[in-house]
Amino acid sequence: MEQKNKAERSPAARNDGRGKVTSYDVASLAGVSQSAVSRCFKPGASISAKIRGKVEKAARQLGYQPNAIARGLISGRSNIVAVIINNLTNLIYPEVLSELNQKFAQHGQHVLLFTLSRESDVDRVLDQVWQYQVDGIVAAAQFTDAQLAACEARCTPLVFYNRIYPNHSVASVCCDHEEGERLLVEGLLRSGRESFAVVSGPADSAVSTARTHGAINALKSAGIPYRQIEGDYSYECAKGIVNSLLAKDSRKINAIVCANDVMAIGCIDQLVHVHGMRVPEDISVVGFDGVSAASWENYNLTTIVQPVSRMVDAAVQMLIERIESFDLPVEKRIFSGKMRFGASASLR
Amino acid sequence: MEQKNKAERSPAARNDGRGKVTSYDVASLAGVSQSAVSRCFKPGASISAKIRGKVEKAARQLGYQPNAIARGLISGRSNIVAVIINNLTNLIYPEVLSELNQKFAQHGQHVLLFTLSRESDVDRVLDQVWQYQVDGIVAAAQFTDAQLAACEARCTPLVFYNRIYPNHSVASVCCDHEEGERLLVEGLLRSGRESFAVVSGPADSAVSTARTHGAINALKSAGIPYRQIEGDYSYECAKGIVNSLLAKDSRKINAIVCANDVMAIGCIDQLVHVHGMRVPEDISVVGFDGVSAASWENYNLTTIVQPVSRMVDAAVQMLIERIESFDLPVEKRIFSGKMRFGASASLR
Repeated sequence: MEQKNKAERSPAARNDGRGKVTSYDVASLAGVSQSAVSRCFKPGASISAKIRGKVEKAARQLGYQPNAIARGLISGRSNIVAVIINNLTNLIYPEVLSELNQKFAQHGQHVLLFTLSRESDVDRVLDQVWQYQVDGIVAAAQFTDAQLAACEARCTPLVFYNRIYPNHSVASVCCDHEEGERLLVEGLLRSGRESFAVVSGPADSAVSTARTHGAINALKSAGIPYRQIEGDYSYECAKGIVNSLLAKDSRKINAIVCANDVMAIGCIDQLVHVHGMRVPEDISVVGFDGVSAASWENYNLTTIVQPVSRMVDAAVQMLIERIESFDLPVEKRIFSGKMRFGASASLR
Repeated sequence: MEQKNKAERSPAARNDGRGKVTSYDVASLAGVSQSAVSRCFKPGASISAKIRGKVEKAARQLGYQPNAIARGLISGRSNIVAVIINNLTNLIYPEVLSELNQKFAQHGQHVLLFTLSRESDVDRVLDQVWQYQVDGIVAAAQFTDAQLAACEARCTPLVFYNRIYPNHSVASVCCDHEEGERLLVEGLLRSGRESFAVVSGPADSAVSTARTHGAINALKSAGIPYRQIEGDYSYECAKGIVNSLLAKDSRKINAIVCANDVMAIGCIDQLVHVHGMRVPEDISVVGFDGVSAASWENYNLTTIVQPVSRMVDAAVQMLIERIESFDLPVEKRIFSGKMRFGASASLR
């Protein structure tokens, strides 16, 4: 089997003018200096229209592309941002990632993706992040004090997505989880529900902690008893949780507050298809996120819709600003979610 | 407002030993040569345990990280692979992306993500891909001949995901779309269905073309009439398609073959909740993909489950091999999907 590696092939490719063409090749063909070619591809650099025309023609002819990596080493900019994100199968994060990717591209930044199996699994990826000399980080994950300090020491700007650190000064974009849960619980109470279950996400999820806290605070303020059960954000876990809720408290619980939409969907399916209950007549179910499946006819969830597009706009803008000027004052932008009045709970 | 940029801060950061530490700093502290430090961080390079111990201690002390970008310029490897992927909100692709990301990481490769709004929108991102000198590309998108030639000319290995080019020699991993559709249609025919609608995806989707072709071929072979309607893979489009099918052919159509699961889910919701029909008693609906929502109790789709994990394994392995040896023989790996016998069509 013939095997040639990339390095061995390069000279041949260069010979026929199709391979890794350099700025010197372009300068030679265009009859200009190499520095003119370089200026032509540098955003904002001044160059005459005539020379630009010559360079662009020669570059097209040779298939020349400026080397972003080499340029990055010189300028100290890689034009790469790291996105550290948990569990892409969680339905809301693919939407977030897709928006982040498109909006960073508009600023000439590209997304190097790091996925975690658990939110607290940051150490493993952070070593790799440093190696790529990224210009900045968007993190939907939990950082320790040491990890925050490492970003600070490296002057790498960092914007947290959907979590804030009450005790730390770190730039963050967040949906107001507690307010959203309070609105849901107050609505359920007004609609006459008085026996609650609160289904949280994994213990190391900051989003789940904030949402569960919000729901429980609202219930405590109203003096309403509740049961709290830990899930893992999945459809499957929700089905088991419904079984255990009904086994122990049959007919008693009439409202389930879930820390995300997917668990609310799992609860509804189990209540309706397995236990023959009516939602919302027998029991109300509410979620949080506003994923696309929440508006599917069969579920029509009552939930809090995160303003994903506005939140991503904010995160991108904040990170881009901080890449330009590392020492900008810390800012936390907290967005209110929007109540979706669905059919899984009658709140109006 | 005080504004300092990253470059201005760097000297200070370097002074206190926390900033961009170089291999020379490590060498100096460890009392070894810079080349010893370099060898210590180069996979496979030989170095004595004693020197390695000194270097690692000094590196830890200074917070030194080798610069992957600079190393890439020297070695000709960036350790970055581009993943060009369509529409992350399509439910199957987040699963694929998450698996790709984790499996490439095991090979020391990181994913630079390029998302397309349409499969044919490749030109816009390819310019950017070249600038990052990626080691290879996984593409779930349509390439033109010129784009394929550009990859060849640059000796950049390319593996297509979920599409094959019958007329081109390009490495590909693909689910057998046509076989899957044939199995679904033959099952529907055996179950007594005889009036079909085939709902395709967007016209520029190679996956949709292959699936629709498979379904129609099977129907033609059996001499069965059908109506073909173009959708866009979304839940929403499917609802409109059901309306138009029932308006024109009320009671006539008794099987809908959808080019993906999400459209099948949209069809079921519209048939059941809006038109009061029973699935599968009045009408059978089948999808394709095997997304997680396909197994939700309420839908329980009859569909073809793509072996995502095995397909991603294959794509990663093929690309890694070709990064090592660009001229490996072209290989196309075609995986059969697995029939999921759900409740949306009674096929057994």
